[in-house]
Amino acid sequence: VKGKRKSFESDPCPVARALDAIGDWWSLLIIRDALAGNRRFGEFQKSLGLAKNILTARLRKLAAHGIMKAVPASDGSAYHDYILTDKGKRLHLVITAIWQWSETSLFAPGEMQRVLCDRLNGEPLARIEVRASDGRVLQARDMLLKRDVPSP
Amino acid sequence: VKGKRKSFESDPCPVARALDAIGDWWSLLIIRDALAGNRRFGEFQKSLGLAKNILTARLRKLAAHGIMKAVPASDGSAYHDYILTDKGKRLHLVITAIWQWSETSLFAPGEMQRVLCDRLNGEPLARIEVRASDGRVLQARDMLLKRDVPSP
Repeated sequence: VKGKRKSFESDPCPVARALDAIGDWWSLLIIRDALAGNRRFGEFQKSLGLAKNILTARLRKLAAHGIMKAVPASDGSAYHDYILTDKGKRLHLVITAIWQWSETSLFAPGEMQRVLCDRLNGEPLARIEVRASDGRVLQARDMLLKRDVPSP
Repeated sequence: VKGKRKSFESDPCPVARALDAIGDWWSLLIIRDALAGNRRFGEFQKSLGLAKNILTARLRKLAAHGIMKAVPASDGSAYHDYILTDKGKRLHLVITAIWQWSETSLFAPGEMQRVLCDRLNGEPLARIEVRASDGRVLQARDMLLKRDVPSP
């Protein structure tokens, strides 16, 4: 995206507001790597093929939004580990939703892909579904937008 | 993001590949608006406050990825409607996941927000959950990444 972007920090739409925190190109991939167990600056850099200054800026931005934090390295060295906060860990929902949409929509049969599995038994995850409060599975056409509702 | 971006079109990671299609700043908001019922160029423009040339480029990109398509206007005029394809409609999962994470993580109690509801009864949706194939609810720490798995 070229030019200065509008900030959605105070937008009443949750999707717009989320884009301020996680909507840039690299942030979701850093979060994906953190969910997969990466902790070290060098691990993120190797996985993403990203320039140091850009990775530093992205990690700082994620920290400013309370999604990741720097902690002393677990090996006792002078380095830092970069880990997800609880708010960041809850993004596993978003990562999984994108993952499943992409698997269904952007991969041809037989193409090699990465698969998200259940750590307990190595099985693929169940399909995520959007459901009504009474459990009915909802499609796009079944959803309605309400404006100006106070947040609980 | 400044400069030329790497393409993830053939990336084995579904999240990276999805970013090629929906990872820019405006695409998810266009998809949100289309899910909320917007169809006309002017409706998207008014909702997003976006320059015509940028909106045109984003709609073309979404069409190139098979997520939206231009169809003759439903009122029989010379205009087009811009509607989601089936592939695009399935993004309701992604939009809802981002929505729910954002509601929980980025809004203070009492702040005015937009709420996604069940069209049938106007009730808020159930919380989306990541589940194992046997139905257990999974958290971030319960997930495992497998590489080089052929797509079904």
